[in-house]
Amino acid sequence: MSATAVSRVESAYRDIERSGRPEVWIALRERDAALAEAASVDARVDAGERLPLAGLVAAVKDNIDVAGLPTTAGAASYRYLPDTDATAVARLRAAGAVVLGKTNLDQFATGLVGTRSPFGAVRNAWDESRISGGSSSGSAVAVALGLVDLALGTDTAGSGRVPAALNGIVGVKPTRGLVPTTGVVPACRSIDVVTVFARSRRLASLAVGLMSGKDGIDPLARALPALAPALSPVPRVAVPLPTQLEGLAAGWKEAFAAVVAQLAAGGVEVVETDISPLLEAATLLYGGAFVAERYAAVGAHLEANRELIGDDLDPTVAAIVLAGAAPTAAQYYADRERLDVLGAQAEAALAGVDALLTPTTTWHPTLSEVAADPVGANSRMGRYTNFANLLDKSAISVPAGTVDGLPFGVMLTGPAFADAALAALADRIEQSEVELLVVGAHLSGQPLNHELRSAGAVLVGPVETAPEYRLYELDTVPRKPGLVRAPGGREISGELWRVPVAGFGRLVAGIPAPLGIGKVLLADGSIVPGFICEPEAVQHAREITAHGGWLAWLESSAAPVG
Amino acid sequence: MSATAVSRVESAYRDIERSGRPEVWIALRERDAALAEAASVDARVDAGERLPLAGLVAAVKDNIDVAGLPTTAGAASYRYLPDTDATAVARLRAAGAVVLGKTNLDQFATGLVGTRSPFGAVRNAWDESRISGGSSSGSAVAVALGLVDLALGTDTAGSGRVPAALNGIVGVKPTRGLVPTTGVVPACRSIDVVTVFARSRRLASLAVGLMSGKDGIDPLARALPALAPALSPVPRVAVPLPTQLEGLAAGWKEAFAAVVAQLAAGGVEVVETDISPLLEAATLLYGGAFVAERYAAVGAHLEANRELIGDDLDPTVAAIVLAGAAPTAAQYYADRERLDVLGAQAEAALAGVDALLTPTTTWHPTLSEVAADPVGANSRMGRYTNFANLLDKSAISVPAGTVDGLPFGVMLTGPAFADAALAALADRIEQSEVELLVVGAHLSGQPLNHELRSAGAVLVGPVETAPEYRLYELDTVPRKPGLVRAPGGREISGELWRVPVAGFGRLVAGIPAPLGIGKVLLADGSIVPGFICEPEAVQHAREITAHGGWLAWLESSAAPVG
Repeated sequence: MSATAVSRVESAYRDIERSGRPEVWIALRERDAALAEAASVDARVDAGERLPLAGLVAAVKDNIDVAGLPTTAGAASYRYLPDTDATAVARLRAAGAVVLGKTNLDQFATGLVGTRSPFGAVRNAWDESRISGGSSSGSAVAVALGLVDLALGTDTAGSGRVPAALNGIVGVKPTRGLVPTTGVVPACRSIDVVTVFARSRRLASLAVGLMSGKDGIDPLARALPALAPALSPVPRVAVPLPTQLEGLAAGWKEAFAAVVAQLAAGGVEVVETDISPLLEAATLLYGGAFVAERYAAVGAHLEANRELIGDDLDPTVAAIVLAGAAPTAAQYYADRERLDVLGAQAEAALAGVDALLTPTTTWHPTLSEVAADPVGANSRMGRYTNFANLLDKSAISVPAGTVDGLPFGVMLTGPAFADAALAALADRIEQSEVELLVVGAHLSGQPLNHELRSAGAVLVGPVETAPEYRLYELDTVPRKPGLVRAPGGREISGELWRVPVAGFGRLVAGIPAPLGIGKVLLADGSIVPGFICEPEAVQHAREITAHGGWLAWLESSAAPVG
Repeated sequence: MSATAVSRVESAYRDIERSGRPEVWIALRERDAALAEAASVDARVDAGERLPLAGLVAAVKDNIDVAGLPTTAGAASYRYLPDTDATAVARLRAAGAVVLGKTNLDQFATGLVGTRSPFGAVRNAWDESRISGGSSSGSAVAVALGLVDLALGTDTAGSGRVPAALNGIVGVKPTRGLVPTTGVVPACRSIDVVTVFARSRRLASLAVGLMSGKDGIDPLARALPALAPALSPVPRVAVPLPTQLEGLAAGWKEAFAAVVAQLAAGGVEVVETDISPLLEAATLLYGGAFVAERYAAVGAHLEANRELIGDDLDPTVAAIVLAGAAPTAAQYYADRERLDVLGAQAEAALAGVDALLTPTTTWHPTLSEVAADPVGANSRMGRYTNFANLLDKSAISVPAGTVDGLPFGVMLTGPAFADAALAALADRIEQSEVELLVVGAHLSGQPLNHELRSAGAVLVGPVETAPEYRLYELDTVPRKPGLVRAPGGREISGELWRVPVAGFGRLVAGIPAPLGIGKVLLADGSIVPGFICEPEAVQHAREITAHGGWLAWLESSAAPVG
């Protein structure tokens, strides 16, 4: 991209404003301040400096300090104003990224749903009725919508991976300690990890690499050892036993099997493995004394502000954290012993494989499903993620197609410091694509076509709808048509594109009413996702069906309009 | 040595019987069983098998399982009969060592004194009025007295190092996890380490090496990494600030300075270093929530047997362990955070040095001093040892001369997996030697001379006492003289030997009444330690002063006796 930092910041603020997703942000940076920083990035690049993230904009989960922006961890009562960037943020900015703001989260990073916030539930990038996943909800959705190029999250139970999967993007959870947690509000201090969301695996890994290395402050920071696990020449991947894949959302088992088959076809050896030690370890994160670490982190704040529970303090989060006051240290040690045994069993089970492949999560509930059962709905989601940090694993979640029009994500989990091996393996999982019919401003040569191209889409070719659609010109800037299936219609010409899953969320969510993505019947009898229009919106619009397509209409109307 | 395993076992049982130290043992193996195992070792060696520990006998601390011998951990009420050797024991036996029995300890390995046992306080090998140090009291004294060649201990707070120092022997505390703890009664499960006592550093390290390696059972076992810290070409050693050496027993500061000077003279770079993070970490072992791990280990046994406290259950140990029920898991996490910070500070303080050199402990109390203040006396002893396992350090305690006739030990503490580097550095600390005048059965060619030789002693040469000693023949087998300083005496001829400190305790403690080691004035005016006799014992003995020495007397009396 030849885009300068300034132009990227300008377009990002426009996108943010148009996105209609105010709940993504807890604090947006002043546009002028961001532009000034972008100008300085551009100047440094012009002066010959090599800034690997120049021209990119970033969002930061609001439990990570950005100097001059308040940190709330999702609770206004907890708010403080840091005068120093977190180590991760400082390194991101030093590499040229411009931070635009702080994103919403499950309060105190406690949750996998993205609804546990007094700043509002964060809606999914693809479907506003669904959850975003959490706790790094705002960061994941900001990336999925294309509002920013990359975003920082944190991951204790799976908060850097579950929302990546539910929004069709990449979530890299590095080995614990590689990225210092200096300047991060602790959830479980000893196992918290700073993560990166991006639409591209390569960009996410690049950002992790730039943020890695001891900072002399975080006592748990670790250097990448000289000898880190490398991907085997013939990679071996463990997958759970079939019974350990029960309880997935409809269609997810099949989607997972498709990924397994695709890897196997690509020369990866797949080994069915009993992962029960990992699944049991996952239950310990909230089921045992380990929850006391959350109390050690923010229990004092909750105790001192009990009157705010139900108001500024999320009642579900408060109940979980306050329960952490009860376990004794002796119970901790008993649980720790069990965890150590499970860890050794897991290591034995996974000996000789490069990684474990699982679905990232188990289902994708609606906002109302979570509201009806906040704890139960949440706990189902961490089945494959909760154990990773407890057992010192590296992990990465990547998009793997869609099921029923929603993204499906799979996860690779490997030993500590296997980050590079996991990344190489993740690249073998083909980026699934979604077909998309466009009939108006996204057509080749038209004003919004760049949105398709920047999402990595490729043109399949010209197509025609079945002979039962009508086309209208809407009253918008730029000019757009509205496609409506209705009696008396005809074939309408358009283009079929293939859009990578990671870029699809952005397109879908960026579409302003009355347009939307629905299913369109093509002339050849196939049904594909495509731009459609709410019928009410065209009642007083000019019908242009007779022209057979938007380009023909533009041509015929060019003289009078121009 | 050409000694066979059988003859070594035979002499060991004789030594044990004659030692007058029944409190060293909680369970002695049946002599015949040990002899049968020794015979099988000899047969395997004769058949050409290479058994690195063949011909050596060992003792095992009674919190480590030996198949067929009860494990008590120092409490009869806790007793169980294991049918499998602990991994460490199995590997020791596989290498040819014959285990003779289970040794006394501070109950549940909780203490550094060696007095907290219903099986009796273990008296020091050099001075029966002093403590042995603990918790591995019996193992250390058994080695110091030469009853066995090596012994296993365990070390959580310093139990594998403090008793080594107080008894003038070597104590190797390997990096946590190198030797699996399978079959060891936990004290603090996550930081317990199996250790080795020996009179020779080389033998102790050999035994550690033979016992190392994952066993597939202990989940905390760790393999020695391919790249472990090696000793720098010009070794650098940190020593505490002068103020951090305050409070040592009289003469110990000077003895420590002598070791430092000796190392510096040998080309080791010595760096005064502020070790306050380590000293603070040491206080956390008992002062914080970490004591809850002891409750997790044996709290249930104490709770179920409260009526035995003061009887089979040591009241000091019980009070410490039962206090471990109180801390919350949240307090554990707060202490863990403090420890992590201290660990990072310690790492920074010790960056660039191969090891920290300190006295092993701070004083050497009498049994009655400890009885008067069981907790206070104990807590002073762990100042330089308590932090090692909490902060994942390797360590080794070696003898460094004597102060006021009692052994003084120093300790090298290094990073995890620096075991070999520490051993190489320890070998630069010259084995101090003690001069010893012998005038009877220990003279060259006489029946007990082998005791000197097996303790590594070297002959300085023939000497004569000042002309004020009388010599008597005692009524003993073998025949021995008694030397008494008394008016009317004359010069008595003898030999001056140099005995390594690590072998001196054995000699001193093995001397039967009425003999003992006292100070003797030589003809040249010097005063040296030497065999003396209680005057009462010679009242009815035959005086042989006129012969001028034992050998002359033997010669003159040879005909009539033979």
